[in-house]
Amino acid sequence: MSDKNAEISFRKAKVEDLEDVVEMLADDQLGSVREQASRPLPLIYREAFERMSRQNGNDLFVTVKNGQVIGCMQLTIIHGISRKGMSRCQIEGVRISSKARGGGIGGKMMKFAIEYAKKQGCGLVQLTTDLRRKDAHKFYEDLGFSGSHLGMKLDLLNQ
Amino acid sequence: MSDKNAEISFRKAKVEDLEDVVEMLADDQLGSVREQASRPLPLIYREAFERMSRQNGNDLFVTVKNGQVIGCMQLTIIHGISRKGMSRCQIEGVRISSKARGGGIGGKMMKFAIEYAKKQGCGLVQLTTDLRRKDAHKFYEDLGFSGSHLGMKLDLLNQ
Repeated sequence: MSDKNAEISFRKAKVEDLEDVVEMLADDQLGSVREQASRPLPLIYREAFERMSRQNGNDLFVTVKNGQVIGCMQLTIIHGISRKGMSRCQIEGVRISSKARGGGIGGKMMKFAIEYAKKQGCGLVQLTTDLRRKDAHKFYEDLGFSGSHLGMKLDLLNQ
Repeated sequence: MSDKNAEISFRKAKVEDLEDVVEMLADDQLGSVREQASRPLPLIYREAFERMSRQNGNDLFVTVKNGQVIGCMQLTIIHGISRKGMSRCQIEGVRISSKARGGGIGGKMMKFAIEYAKKQGCGLVQLTTDLRRKDAHKFYEDLGFSGSHLGMKLDLLNQ
C-alpha cells in the first residue's frame, strides 16, 4: 500500500528512469501488447528518449515518492498561431505504478501539469482519453476539463 | 469558384504568409471571436510564428493554388516513449479559404499530412475535432481515421 503521508515530487526524467517508465507503460491492458519491457531495455526506447531530448518543449516527467519513481507523464508545449498565437500544453502517456494507485497521485500529477502549463505561458491544457474510460472522463472533468472533442487517430503501422 | 484543374502544392509557411493564415483562422464561426485579423496584423502572431520556428518538428504548412495561399494546417511531430518509442504527427488548425472550399482540397491536404508523417517516421497521425461536427468525423473516417478517444481541454485563460 502507498504511504499517503509521504511527500511526492516531480522532475524531468533522466535516461536512467527509462526502465521504470517502460515498466509502467507496459503494466496496462493495452500497454502490455504495445511495449517490450525486457531487461536490458531494447535500444529503441533510449533512441526515442534522445529524440525527445532534442525537441525543446517536449518532456517526460516522473513522479517520485520515497526516492522511487511511481508515475510518469509526457508534457508537450505546442506553440501555434491560432487563438491569437496561443501555446498549448498536451498531456500524453499518464501512468501510475500499480503499487501507488489509489492515493490521489493522479490528481497531484494533473495539478503539477496545469501549473507547469501556466508557467510556460500556455492558454490551454489538452489530452485525449479512450472513449470507453468513463472513470477517466469523470476524473478530468472534476479537474475542470471539458470533453468537447472527438480524438481521431490513424494508425500508420498496421494499415 | 475554384478551378478544379489547377495544381495545388504545399510548403512550410513563411512569415509573409501570416496575414493570409490569420484571415483563414478568423473566417470561421469560432475563429471570428478568437482571432484579431486587423491590418497590420497584431505583433502577437509574428511572435507566435517565431516561437514555432524555434521548435523543431512543429511547422505551419500552407496550401497554394495559382500562387495564392488557400489553406493552412499545423503539423507537429511529437516524439515519445510509449508504443516502443513511436513518434506521432498531430494535425491542428486545418483551414481552407472560403473561396476554395468544395474542390477536394481538404482531402489533398490530409493526404499530404499523412505522407509527411510517414516520411518523418511516425507511426500514428492524430487530431481532435469538435464533437458536434459530424460531417468532419465522416470526412476523417473516410481517410482511415478512427474516432476512438474523447478530446478534453482545460481553458487556462477564462478560469
